[in-house]
Amino acid sequence: MRIIVTGGAGFLGRHLCAKMLSLGHEVLCVDNLLTGRRENIEEFEQNSAFRFFLHDVTTPFVLDGPVNAVVHMACPASPPDYLRYPIQTLEVGTIGTRNMLELARAKGARFLLTSTSEVYGDPTVNPQSEEYWGNVNPIGPRSVYDESKRASEALTMAYRRAHGLDTRIARIFNTYGPWMRPDDGRVISNFVMQALQGKELTIYGDGSQTRSFCYVTDLVEGLVRMLLAESDSGAAGASGSEWGINYPVNLGNPREEKVVDVARIITQMTGSSSPVKFHPLPTDDPKLRCPDISRARRLLRWEPIVSLEEGLTAVIKYFRKCLGS
Amino acid sequence: MRIIVTGGAGFLGRHLCAKMLSLGHEVLCVDNLLTGRRENIEEFEQNSAFRFFLHDVTTPFVLDGPVNAVVHMACPASPPDYLRYPIQTLEVGTIGTRNMLELARAKGARFLLTSTSEVYGDPTVNPQSEEYWGNVNPIGPRSVYDESKRASEALTMAYRRAHGLDTRIARIFNTYGPWMRPDDGRVISNFVMQALQGKELTIYGDGSQTRSFCYVTDLVEGLVRMLLAESDSGAAGASGSEWGINYPVNLGNPREEKVVDVARIITQMTGSSSPVKFHPLPTDDPKLRCPDISRARRLLRWEPIVSLEEGLTAVIKYFRKCLGS
Repeated sequence: MRIIVTGGAGFLGRHLCAKMLSLGHEVLCVDNLLTGRRENIEEFEQNSAFRFFLHDVTTPFVLDGPVNAVVHMACPASPPDYLRYPIQTLEVGTIGTRNMLELARAKGARFLLTSTSEVYGDPTVNPQSEEYWGNVNPIGPRSVYDESKRASEALTMAYRRAHGLDTRIARIFNTYGPWMRPDDGRVISNFVMQALQGKELTIYGDGSQTRSFCYVTDLVEGLVRMLLAESDSGAAGASGSEWGINYPVNLGNPREEKVVDVARIITQMTGSSSPVKFHPLPTDDPKLRCPDISRARRLLRWEPIVSLEEGLTAVIKYFRKCLGS
Repeated sequence: MRIIVTGGAGFLGRHLCAKMLSLGHEVLCVDNLLTGRRENIEEFEQNSAFRFFLHDVTTPFVLDGPVNAVVHMACPASPPDYLRYPIQTLEVGTIGTRNMLELARAKGARFLLTSTSEVYGDPTVNPQSEEYWGNVNPIGPRSVYDESKRASEALTMAYRRAHGLDTRIARIFNTYGPWMRPDDGRVISNFVMQALQGKELTIYGDGSQTRSFCYVTDLVEGLVRMLLAESDSGAAGASGSEWGINYPVNLGNPREEKVVDVARIITQMTGSSSPVKFHPLPTDDPKLRCPDISRARRLLRWEPIVSLEEGLTAVIKYFRKCLGS
């Protein structure tokens, strides 16, 4: 397959590029490097099956030759990133998504949108199944990300309904692993970097809020299965439990961890003596978030297999290397 | 003031243009006539304070000279319209809104977004205040409108926060009046046209769902007050009851009517002998919708004053004229 991966120089994008290359596919990585990093993809640049395009997808991307799939991952994805780039975040999920849907349509390609558990907002049900409509503040500071992704999903479904495009939507929950940016502001990056540097571990709120953390190899395995799964026939009108592969699928680890416990585990694993410091909870921060992955199990025969301890071992090793220690 | 009104050839747009002209302002009406009608604005075209631009705002609109305000109303707004034009509906609320925000920013103009009660989706609270986050299906057929407007609001707030743009967001509830399209598929247009033509009145569901209907002169008065209100100083960070004019304001009539009662009133007022026919409820049709207008009362000293019977009298007269009867 010849696939386009937007945001391919980001954390998740990098891993998807690596996986698709290892499976023998041709990968065209499109990234404007707003939050992605060239170093994430350096090792692929000698690979003749890989090409990098420095391009902002809010401008149409024109390309000769066939394309079998477009994976639209581009978007600032961590809270500090999307709060720093609020308008770009909305633009890539609206204008960018429209441009990539048009490209997929022009090429007759499959389209995979990487959406997010943030479409559930601060959920009033737990765990969240794909049927849940979410509880999102449309005008809060975080709305630049949440509403960008909700609009992306709406656009994707509209192209499926109006043009019969073969679309898929992955709703990705918290994911971690090597090649995260040390300064991306996510819980695990923060804690590991702080622990390794002997700084205070910063917990927002009282730490009793839970998160589910999926190790990146598990997540990418789920994405690849979504991308390669056979299309349903005419499922766009189906509803309820009959939802097929063209409807959103949660990808994440259903094991819930309290943020305060994650801090403790990381402190232990790094042998750090860093204390924990509690800060006020940011606006509209979700109290809990845990995927119901029944659909992924059923449609993709997928579930996470890497334990938090295994995953953290790899991340700690990676960040130690980043720090040169 | 020199103001741009996008969607100015639509039902509400037409009334806002008329009102602003009558107040002595200069009106630049921008409309691609996808669902708007040239005949709606015919009577202004001899007025030197009025100009019409046939233009689709998903392409940037370039204009010489000063602009004091941009009122962004363009969007297919009735369910049959946005279901017929799903992608255009999403585009005008994302790309179009971004372009109009950029225009306002370039001109140093005030920006008023006409949003919708649809951002509340199928609400779990009644009446809906502006603090309510809504219950919207991001992937249903109606999401093309609901998520388009939610993304518009998020974009508008992002421009306010990032660039200090003087923005306002009106959340408009059901509105009716002369110059509605007879075929726009809204409850009142349907009922009046059916009653006048001696056809069955079509009720979706059992008719017990309620709607609030605001007469167009009331609604436009609210919009004008929002547009002309003084800006708050630095209210972007305020929350709760301190929300100022730059936060969303509900505009609508809080008087709730059961759909079945509206059918009965219209049958009586038209002297029609049309029977009522019940049809299945469309996907995700809201069961109730009623504005809490406390903020509009407090900030704008506004509330509706036209009764349903007065308003219907005007609509029946208008549609009779349309039918040439």
